[in-house]
Amino acid sequence: MTKRVLPLRKFIKPTFESLIEKKRDGGEFTQEEIRYIIDSTLDGEMPQHQLAALLMAIYFANMSAQETADLTEEMMLSGEVIDLSHIAKPKIDKYSTGGIGDKTSLVLVPLAMAAGVVVPMMCGVEHDYVINTLEKLCAIPGFKPHLSNEQFANQLAKINGAICAQNEDLAPADAKYYELRKETGTIPSLPLITGSVLSKKLAEGAEGLVIDVKWGNGSFIKDLEQAKQLARSMTRVGRSMKRRCVALVTDMNQPLGDTVGTSLEIKEAITLLKGGGPEDMKELVLKLGMEIVRLAGVAGSTLSAKQTVQRHLTDGSALEKFKELVKAQGGDTTYVDHPEKFPMAKHIRKLPAPKRGYVHTINAAMIAHGVHLLGAGRDHHGKVDHSVGVSEIKKVGTQVKQGEPLMMIHYNDESKLEQALNYFKEAYRLAPKRPTPPPLVVERVA
Amino acid sequence: MTKRVLPLRKFIKPTFESLIEKKRDGGEFTQEEIRYIIDSTLDGEMPQHQLAALLMAIYFANMSAQETADLTEEMMLSGEVIDLSHIAKPKIDKYSTGGIGDKTSLVLVPLAMAAGVVVPMMCGVEHDYVINTLEKLCAIPGFKPHLSNEQFANQLAKINGAICAQNEDLAPADAKYYELRKETGTIPSLPLITGSVLSKKLAEGAEGLVIDVKWGNGSFIKDLEQAKQLARSMTRVGRSMKRRCVALVTDMNQPLGDTVGTSLEIKEAITLLKGGGPEDMKELVLKLGMEIVRLAGVAGSTLSAKQTVQRHLTDGSALEKFKELVKAQGGDTTYVDHPEKFPMAKHIRKLPAPKRGYVHTINAAMIAHGVHLLGAGRDHHGKVDHSVGVSEIKKVGTQVKQGEPLMMIHYNDESKLEQALNYFKEAYRLAPKRPTPPPLVVERVA
Repeated sequence: MTKRVLPLRKFIKPTFESLIEKKRDGGEFTQEEIRYIIDSTLDGEMPQHQLAALLMAIYFANMSAQETADLTEEMMLSGEVIDLSHIAKPKIDKYSTGGIGDKTSLVLVPLAMAAGVVVPMMCGVEHDYVINTLEKLCAIPGFKPHLSNEQFANQLAKINGAICAQNEDLAPADAKYYELRKETGTIPSLPLITGSVLSKKLAEGAEGLVIDVKWGNGSFIKDLEQAKQLARSMTRVGRSMKRRCVALVTDMNQPLGDTVGTSLEIKEAITLLKGGGPEDMKELVLKLGMEIVRLAGVAGSTLSAKQTVQRHLTDGSALEKFKELVKAQGGDTTYVDHPEKFPMAKHIRKLPAPKRGYVHTINAAMIAHGVHLLGAGRDHHGKVDHSVGVSEIKKVGTQVKQGEPLMMIHYNDESKLEQALNYFKEAYRLAPKRPTPPPLVVERVA
Repeated sequence: MTKRVLPLRKFIKPTFESLIEKKRDGGEFTQEEIRYIIDSTLDGEMPQHQLAALLMAIYFANMSAQETADLTEEMMLSGEVIDLSHIAKPKIDKYSTGGIGDKTSLVLVPLAMAAGVVVPMMCGVEHDYVINTLEKLCAIPGFKPHLSNEQFANQLAKINGAICAQNEDLAPADAKYYELRKETGTIPSLPLITGSVLSKKLAEGAEGLVIDVKWGNGSFIKDLEQAKQLARSMTRVGRSMKRRCVALVTDMNQPLGDTVGTSLEIKEAITLLKGGGPEDMKELVLKLGMEIVRLAGVAGSTLSAKQTVQRHLTDGSALEKFKELVKAQGGDTTYVDHPEKFPMAKHIRKLPAPKRGYVHTINAAMIAHGVHLLGAGRDHHGKVDHSVGVSEIKKVGTQVKQGEPLMMIHYNDESKLEQALNYFKEAYRLAPKRPTPPPLVVERVA
C-alpha cells in the first residue's frame, strides 16, 4: 500500500476565487492546481461554497482530457493505493455505471478467476434504487462484505478474486466531492464522473479495467450520446494512467435478465454460472467476459476469447471459483449448491397484462423503485428483505395475451405490495405491433 | 417605509437541489421560486454551498428578462422600501457602474436639485480602487455620510437632494448575495448585477433612474458588448418595475476629467459647478444632466434640456444647491466657497513623459491603483488621506515632449510614492502617431 508523495515544488498558491474564475472562463488547470484544489478539499481549507461554485463551473466549462486524467490521478493519490505487484497474474477489474437486474459481476468475477485473471473488485455505495453486487452477495448467509486492504490482497493472491466494500481510505477526496455534488446538481458532469469512478477503481490495484457504461431509462445516463462520451472519457483517462481499458456502451432501457431482487438475482447468477440463464444476460456475460480475458492477455483472438468464456461456464470451473469466493468471505456455499435453500417470499403473484399485445417498453427505473418498495433495498434500519423482488420478467418484444403475467411479484407485506404495484403497472407499455428490441451492446470503445 | 407582504399561496417548496438542476438545465424560475430562494437565503435555510452552485448556474444559464425583473423585485422587497410619495416633485436617481476620476454625481445631484428634481442618492460600497462619491464628499470637514431613512426623506423634502451611505435595511438579500458572489466568481453575471444594483436603487424611492454603464480598462466591464447588454437589461427591468429608465454606455478607457483623488476631485467638481472644468467631464455632465431633467419632465425637448442644464451651471444655482446639500449633512461650506482651504499634499511632482509622442492609451485601473497606494483609499485602519492623488492628467490624443509632465502626483509619503510610480508609468502608452480618442458616450438605451 503506497501513500501519495507530494512534490509541491515552487507552486505559488492561487486564491480559490481566481481558480473558480479560471475555470469559469474556460481555462485549463495545471496538474499542480488540481492537486492544490484536492489537497485543500481534504484539509477543509477550501470552503464548501467555493468548491460548489467550482464544481458547477466544471459542469458548464468542462475539463480537457489532460485535466480529467490529472483530476483522476490526484483523487486516487488522495488516499491509499493498493499495490498488487507481488501478484504475477494479470489483474483486471470490471466496473458498471449501474443497471437494474444486472448480475453480470456475480458471473464475470468467478469466470475471470477461473481463467487465471485476478479480479480486485470493490463496490461503492448504491445509486438510487440500483442494488449493487455486494448487496446481492449478502443474501448468502455469512457472507462478509468488508475486507481490510490486507485481507483483500491476500485473498486475491490465494484465489484470484474478491468482491468487497470500498474502503474509506481509498480516494477519500472522492467521498467529499460526491457528497457535495449530490447537493449541488453537479452529479452529471463527465469529467467529475470519470474522476470519481476511476480514482477509486484504479486505487484497487488493477492493471486493466473493463467498463460497462449503461444508457437508458434504468441508468443515470439517459442519453446515448452522453454514454458514448463517458465511455471515451473513461478509456482515455485509463490509458493516460497506463492502464489497459475497454468500455462497452450497453442498453439499460429494460431490466437485465429475468429477475430483480437480491436472492432472485443470486439464483439467476448461479444458473448463468452453470451455462444456462436468460439470453440477454448470457450475451452480456460473454461480451464483457471476452473483453476481460483479452485485456488480461489470457486469450489472444476473438475466437479464443469466446471459447475461454464458454468453456469456464460449461465445465463448472467458474461455478467452482464462485464457491471459493463465497467461502473465502465467510458465506455458506451450500446455498450455491442448493439454491432452493434461499428463503422464498411468503407470496408470489402475477402482474397481469391489461390487454393483449407486445411489450413495447419497460421503464427499468420504475421496476427498481417498485422492488425497492417491496423491501429489497436498505430500509431506515439498514435492513434488507432478501426474499422479495420480481421474476419471469417479460422483456421488450414479447407477445402477451390479456391476463398473462408480465412478471411474477415476490412479496411479504400486502401493504408494501400496493404501492409497488403502481410502479410495476406504470413501467409496462404494451402495443399492438412488435417493436424492434434495442441492441444490447451499442458500441465498443477501446 | 413599507415592508414586504408575502402572499405565499399554495406554493409547494421545491428542494434546493431541484432548483439548482432546473437552472442548470436552462429552466426559467417562477416568481414564487425566486421569492422562495431569496427568503431561504435571508433566513439561512438555503446552505451557502447550494446557493453558490445556483449562482454559478445562473452565470452560465442566464436569466430571462422576466426572471431578472422578478429577482430585482424580490430582492428589493427583502427589506425596507422608502416611500417618497409625499414629495410631489419628480424623483430621479442616477447610478454609475463606477469609473476612475468620475465626479459627475457631485455635479449632477445639485444640478438636478436646482432644476426642481428630487435626487434620493444612496451610495454602495467601493469596488476595488474606485473612490465613490461619498468618499469624496467626506473630504469636506464635518460631512456626515450616514442618514437614517427618515433623515434622508426629510432632507429630500426640504432641499431636493441627499447623498448618503446605503442603509443596511435596504435590500438586505443583496448584501448576502454580493458577499457570496465575490468569493465564487459570479460577480460578472448580467442578471445578478442588474438585480443587485436595481433592487437597492429602486428601494430608495425614485420614480426614474439614469444609469451610466461604463466600459473599458477602468470599469469592471471590460467588454463594450457586455456593457450594452447590461444597459439593456437594466432599463428593461426598470421599466417592468414601472420606473422611467435611461442608460448611457460611456467610455472608461481613461480617467474622467483631470484629477483622481478625493479633495482634488471635489475641487474639480466645484469648478464644474461654476461652468468650468475639463471638456470630457463637461460633456458627460451635460449628457447625463439632460437625461435627468427630461426623465423628470422638467424639460421637454432636447434643446430645452440642454439649456436647463447649462443655465444651472452658469447662474450659480447648482453650486448653491451643492452648498445646501453639504450644509444639510454637516459639512463646512466655506471649503466650497474657498476650495484653496482643502489641505494640499506635502509634495507635488510630475510624472515625466519618457519620450516625445502622443498619449496613445491610459490604463485607468492602474492610475486608480497608484492613487490608492498613495493613500486615497481606506487603509487597514479605515483612514483616508484626502490630500493625495493625481492632477493635470494628460488625456488620450494629447501631444507631449520628452520630460513634459503626463500628470502631477500629490503625495505625502516617499515610500508610498515609489510603488505608486510603477503603476503610473505602466499606465501610459505613448506612440508617434495621434490616436483617435474613443467616443465618450457610445450608446443611449431607453
